[in-house]
Order: sequence, then C-alpha cells, then structure tokens
Amino acid sequence: MSRPPGRKQENHKISRELLVLTYGALVAQLCKDYEKDEDVNICLDRMGYGIGVRLIDDFLARSAVKKCRSYSETADMIAQVAFKMYLGVTPSVSCSSAAGNEFSLILDKNPLVDFVEELPAERASLCYCNLLCGVIRGALEMVHLAAEVTFLQDRLKGDAVTEIGITFLRKAEDRKHKR
Amino acid sequence: MSRPPGRKQENHKISRELLVLTYGALVAQLCKDYEKDEDVNICLDRMGYGIGVRLIDDFLARSAVKKCRSYSETADMIAQVAFKMYLGVTPSVSCSSAAGNEFSLILDKNPLVDFVEELPAERASLCYCNLLCGVIRGALEMVHLAAEVTFLQDRLKGDAVTEIGITFLRKAEDRKHKR
Repeated sequence: MSRPPGRKQENHKISRELLVLTYGALVAQLCKDYEKDEDVNICLDRMGYGIGVRLIDDFLARSAVKKCRSYSETADMIAQVAFKMYLGVTPSVSCSSAAGNEFSLILDKNPLVDFVEELPAERASLCYCNLLCGVIRGALEMVHLAAEVTFLQDRLKGDAVTEIGITFLRKAEDRKHKR
Repeated sequence: MSRPPGRKQENHKISRELLVLTYGALVAQLCKDYEKDEDVNICLDRMGYGIGVRLIDDFLARSAVKKCRSYSETADMIAQVAFKMYLGVTPSVSCSSAAGNEFSLILDKNPLVDFVEELPAERASLCYCNLLCGVIRGALEMVHLAAEVTFLQDRLKGDAVTEIGITFLRKAEDRKHKR
C-alpha cells in the first residue's frame, strides 16, 4: 500500500458521520435479524471483538504509543488516544475498585448515537453501542489483557451519562507464572 | 448539542479504520442473511440510500458549498469534497457521455476495502461497496437530482481501478416544466 510521503495521517482522517450512520444501519439490520435485544447485544459484542482484534495493529502503528505499565495507564490510553482517534471524543476515566482493576470510561457525549433520538419502546434492552465493548475487549486481548467490558450507564436509556465499565481479569504476570 | 467554540471541525475528524471495519461487519452480516449476492447488493444500496438522505444535511452544513450549476460541477463536488470528507480520498472524475449527464468517479485506491483481500469465490457477484452507490443516490435526491449510481469497475473483482458510474436522469428544470 503506497502513500504519498508526508500525507499518511491526513489521508486517513475523515468526518465521522458516515461511520455513525453506517453503524446505525448495522444495528438496524441486526434488529431485523434478531427478535431479542440480548441476541443483538451479543452479536454486536462479537462483531466488535473481531474488529478490535484487527484494529489494534492499526492503533499501535498509528499512535506509536509505548507499552502501558499499569491497568490505569491502559485505561487512560483507551480513553485519550484510542477513543480520540477512532471516535473523535475523549471519555473521562475513573477507577472504580480498590483492587485497581476496574475502570469506567465516562462519555458526556457519545458520537455513535448522534442520529439516534431514542430507543424504540420494544428495544428497551438494546445496548445500541455494544460493538464498542467488543472492540475494546478484542483489542485488549491482542495485547494479552483479558477484560470484561460492558455498558454500565447509557444516555439512550435515560442515564445522565454513558459509562463503559472495563474490568481487567488477571495480570499478565499471573498468567506467566501459571505456565 | 453544544461544542467548545472553534473545535467543531476537529471534533468530528476521526481515523477511518473503524468505519472500514464496521462496514466490513455490515457486509458480512448481510452475506449471512442473504444467499444471493444480488440481494446483498440491493440491500446495501437501499441502506446507503437511507444514509445519503440523512448525510446530505451534514454535508451541506459542514462543507458550506454553493449550489452546483451543472452536472459536471455536481460530480466534481461529490469527488473532491464529499469523498474527501467522508472517506479521505479524492476520486478523479471523467464525463463519459456526449449528453453530459454521465460521469465516472475513478478510485485508484478504495479505502473501504482496506481490510479485504479478495472476495470469496462464492461471492463473485457481490458489489462489496454498493452502499456508496446508495449514499450518492440518496444524497443527490435530496438536492432534487435523480441519478442512477452503479459500480462499473471494481478492483476487488480484478479490474485495474474502481469506477463508480453516475447517470443523471433528468434536469431539475425539466421536472419544473412538467408540473
């Protein structure tokens, strides 16, 4: 893949509205395919996982970030670099456990729902943006971090903010010792 | 929707890889849903139409372009402003009819297929990027221009370039006279 020198970054920058609307088309299609919200949520998470697994290479190449030394650094990296890069927003991060392995990404504004007014009454359990959880989970797994990622709050459901919870499941060192 | 002053443009700019991968997930889902390539193509075009109908407002607001005075200007606008804005590439444009109502957008590189190596043998008739045709058609319709938009060549199918054909169907003035 050849690119004119010096234009690499610029060439990849786009306005996000086509992403937002394409994502909407994807969710709408899954809502046609699956009657139960839970099945749509699972499918979005699974698709997101597949995306995260592939996106991580692009992220590492494009961001040129260094290896994170802690869960806290990793959570900050996701919020400040990855969200900024791929969604154009920067969630705030808070640590929500004494053990230091649970974090919340808090979005005052979620660009993925820009064109969504509210969920239809019959889709009250839909996690509209569940793809994002899968993306984060898949990308983390590729850097040897197992995590559970779920929506804890969602403005689409009337919450004050949108909150994504990330729970890191075990330390990479623990796994090494087990081998 | 409030934004910090002076940051409007910057906030909307993202790297396009999440779009490219999300689009791939959408096409993959449709390939699961529909056995026939033709049905996937129709579905992508229809989804794209719905997206174009909504995207045009964003485009007009964000680009601040003036009204086009000819089909040729319109084709240039799609290639140089819209493609650049939403996909980060600028197709070349050629007029392919003496009547001046048929144009080709020619893409040396199609970013939407960045992560696609080739179409599976059993999907040889799939127009992978057919959503784009629908988007263009839907957006044009919103500015009172009826058009047929189809892929004429596709690098995914072994062609040397990717070529989208736009045929404007009738002049707005003709329609006025008919009323």
